Amino acid sequence: MPYYIGDVIKESKRLVIRTPEEFKKTGIDARVKTNVEGIDARNRLVHLSGGETIPYDYLVMATGADAVRLDIPGRDLEGVFVIRNLTDGLNIKSYLNEGDVRKVAIIGGGFIAMEMCEALRNLGCEVKVIARQQRPTVRWDPEFTKMIVEELATNQVEFMPGTKPLAIEKGKSARLKLSTCDGYLDVDMVLMGTGIRPNIVLAKEMGLALGESGAVKVDSRQRTSLEGVWAVGDCCEVFHKVAGRWVYCPLGDIANKQGRVAGQNIGGGSPVAFPGIVGAQAFKVFNLEVADTGLTEEEAAKYGFEPVSSLIWGLPIGRPMTKGEKLGIKLVGDKKTGKLLGAQCIGRKGAVQRVSALSIALWSGLTVDELGYVDLPYAPPFGGAWDAIHIAAQDLARKL
Amino acid sequence: MPYYIGDVIKESKRLVIRTPEEFKKTGIDARVKTNVEGIDARNRLVHLSGGETIPYDYLVMATGADAVRLDIPGRDLEGVFVIRNLTDGLNIKSYLNEGDVRKVAIIGGGFIAMEMCEALRNLGCEVKVIARQQRPTVRWDPEFTKMIVEELATNQVEFMPGTKPLAIEKGKSARLKLSTCDGYLDVDMVLMGTGIRPNIVLAKEMGLALGESGAVKVDSRQRTSLEGVWAVGDCCEVFHKVAGRWVYCPLGDIANKQGRVAGQNIGGGSPVAFPGIVGAQAFKVFNLEVADTGLTEEEAAKYGFEPVSSLIWGLPIGRPMTKGEKLGIKLVGDKKTGKLLGAQCIGRKGAVQRVSALSIALWSGLTVDELGYVDLPYAPPFGGAWDAIHIAAQDLARKL
Repeated sequence: MPYYIGDVIKESKRLVIRTPEEFKKTGIDARVKTNVEGIDARNRLVHLSGGETIPYDYLVMATGADAVRLDIPGRDLEGVFVIRNLTDGLNIKSYLNEGDVRKVAIIGGGFIAMEMCEALRNLGCEVKVIARQQRPTVRWDPEFTKMIVEELATNQVEFMPGTKPLAIEKGKSARLKLSTCDGYLDVDMVLMGTGIRPNIVLAKEMGLALGESGAVKVDSRQRTSLEGVWAVGDCCEVFHKVAGRWVYCPLGDIANKQGRVAGQNIGGGSPVAFPGIVGAQAFKVFNLEVADTGLTEEEAAKYGFEPVSSLIWGLPIGRPMTKGEKLGIKLVGDKKTGKLLGAQCIGRKGAVQRVSALSIALWSGLTVDELGYVDLPYAPPFGGAWDAIHIAAQDLARKL
Repeated sequence: MPYYIGDVIKESKRLVIRTPEEFKKTGIDARVKTNVEGIDARNRLVHLSGGETIPYDYLVMATGADAVRLDIPGRDLEGVFVIRNLTDGLNIKSYLNEGDVRKVAIIGGGFIAMEMCEALRNLGCEVKVIARQQRPTVRWDPEFTKMIVEELATNQVEFMPGTKPLAIEKGKSARLKLSTCDGYLDVDMVLMGTGIRPNIVLAKEMGLALGESGAVKVDSRQRTSLEGVWAVGDCCEVFHKVAGRWVYCPLGDIANKQGRVAGQNIGGGSPVAFPGIVGAQAFKVFNLEVADTGLTEEEAAKYGFEPVSSLIWGLPIGRPMTKGEKLGIKLVGDKKTGKLLGAQCIGRKGAVQRVSALSIALWSGLTVDELGYVDLPYAPPFGGAWDAIHIAAQDLARKL
């Protein structure tokens, strides 16, 4: 009988915290709200909190990742949150619903921080973003992050670059006082969007091999280094097709795919290999679409490519229909092979559309030359006869 | 010195009808409003209307296509238009501007007809679409064309299927009276969106080989069967990468690419080959995006594939953010090779996005299995963790 050991299970739009009885009806022996104290891989046993031990033939590690909670005084005060799992979400919601939360500081400038800006502004909160780095979402080109900072400003979110948080304490005029290297802020809530780390405590203890990234090492069938043990999701690595190596890329869509692959392989159907990723990602910040795929120039250089890049400002729709919209595309190509290595895109519309297409171009190993002539569905409401992708590719091709 | 022989040249947002003097400043000897009476390919001479003869080293045929004007009585009456070139557009605009055009009949149910519905409704006209066939844009699956007919109806456009136009005459209560097999309509304007044919009069006379489609035969460098003669755009064929054959596909973006390829090859840079198309196209009808790429099941069967298809209704954005939007995707795959052969998509948003990505999948020869796991930029405002593309591909994979 399959066992499920974990806290909650999410089902469609409702949040369902299942009881063991409910699980049993679906043929699963579930130990909800149960911790795994240790795993004896040699004898294929899982030791549970409460003293019980259960045997396994196959074990799937899906321990996910933990949010990094900054090591500063006051990090555990009421009103200070990390943003990681369902429980965090529910806690943040309760706190917001309970009282008068007017001022929020978000620590971190990644895309989770950006998404939270929009969510909190929509609730009417005053929002400031405290970032150690000089720009938000540093993965994107400075020309693009400039546009993000402007979008934040347009929506009354202040981005505070180069600001190191030092401590949080109870406040007077607001519930909390956040001290930074640049003075302090009176806020009612602090959100830490300061990254995540794979949860590998059990994996290490039971002796699973880890990859270079520090996450659990798996093969393309999601098998770990130990017979009978599989790993999926944010606790393990994934193969990056463009980089040609295993990387740590904890994103929800990837976790879904890995889970399916592991399930199908364990279930005994014809073996499935997960082909890997190209690093596609996107986020929305207010009215901006921001998307990215493949390698940045820095990553490409690190992995032994000869990156050359080109950044153009084109149009998301046909010129006669435009009303001031613009679409930024940056492409990175490899001087040695002429292949596309990466792409970034930003704009009020059409950015995700282009990165979807460019992700499949990366997946397929297209050259930049070929991309300059690729066939895309053309109609003026959706792009020019020469799409911004073609223009960007031809611009880059001239440099390669 | 390069010669240009033609009517008008369009430049950015303005319509510029250049004089020969203006052309000369750009280094081009232009004969605007000039007809070519014949071409002597043997001696490389072009005979112009007016008696002049000019020599050539390279000749580019860019004669385009002509709109089919239905052979019915009254087809040349004032108020009856075809929709093909800039002059047609200007004539239609003048007629609309001049007087009280309230009722319009559009003959034809292709995507140009659909686009005209929206344009004319935006001007406040009452619009009926007269189509011989039972459904508009028959290339798309009946489930999808049903949605198009509903969208037309929502916008007060009546689609009249199985209706054959018989004659047009001057009207009494309106300017024109359009007789059909089902009675007559009082209308102020008739638009014929009844297809186009390649303009191959000169090509035939000078002895250029034509392809199976009836359009000028070219190679991937845009060379015709005669040395020194090139052809581009709607008068010639194009290579369809999925079909593996030369087809007639008169679309503006393709014409642009062919022109560039011919120009670069004639200009003497390193030779360029136009890799071809996959048949990507899109149109907007009111609030619907409709897009298509690759082969339909019928085409695939005709070309020797073993087509299997799957049609799903998914979501254009993440489920928690949806407000009733739906996205239809139909995929066609080949049972023999497992490869994707074609895709169609419809919805209020996200349809063109998916067909852009799927066009590059076709371009690259992806299998349906691979498409089920392809990496796309995921964020709830733009799709689910399993995108509609994945769901459609996995559904089709089960049938292959």
